[in-house]
Amino acid sequence: MKKDTHPFVLLFDFYGELLTEKQREVFDLYYNEDLSLAEIAEGAGISRQGVRDNIVRAEKALTEIEEKTGLVERFVAYGRDAKRLGEIARAIREHDEALAPLAQELESIAHRLKE
Amino acid sequence: MKKDTHPFVLLFDFYGELLTEKQREVFDLYYNEDLSLAEIAEGAGISRQGVRDNIVRAEKALTEIEEKTGLVERFVAYGRDAKRLGEIARAIREHDEALAPLAQELESIAHRLKE
Repeated sequence: MKKDTHPFVLLFDFYGELLTEKQREVFDLYYNEDLSLAEIAEGAGISRQGVRDNIVRAEKALTEIEEKTGLVERFVAYGRDAKRLGEIARAIREHDEALAPLAQELESIAHRLKE
Repeated sequence: MKKDTHPFVLLFDFYGELLTEKQREVFDLYYNEDLSLAEIAEGAGISRQGVRDNIVRAEKALTEIEEKTGLVERFVAYGRDAKRLGEIARAIREHDEALAPLAQELESIAHRLKE
């Protein structure tokens, strides 16, 4: 499971609050804190298989929410736009220093989009 | 309920697919197709109260998802940024026609953000 870390972690950042508390807890320990299934099981007082089931259910729920809403895909596209906005800001500032205030506004918007 | 149309309809556009099929169906008929509770009840073969319950549950679910994720709020903020990007595009084009290609790129990004 862990080899798929990054896509799931991104989905978790967006949709984590929609999981059950238990799913959120074990997902976070496994993916973000990098604990093993056995370590999580010991700390949570449930079986290793129980931990695994919760993580798999969390992954499935996150995947389904994204398949249904496509919102993370949209945010990822905005990240690309943010990068381009930064480049445009630089270009217009270099073109004419009088445009620096507008360039700065573009950079602020780019920054917000990247968050 | 209907006086609150717009915020719920916006949430429905983002999260509607996360509702149950029945909730989605009656919500759509009520808010988007503007049918009455009685009309929906007749068409769906359930009671007027049953229709009402489904709509209220849908409203509650949509509200909770937004409270937990805040994603629609972010998209609404991007809409404001998009408007400002359009104004900046106009300003730099008027400042120097040589910047028209960059202005056009800004307008494309603004358009995507507004979708």
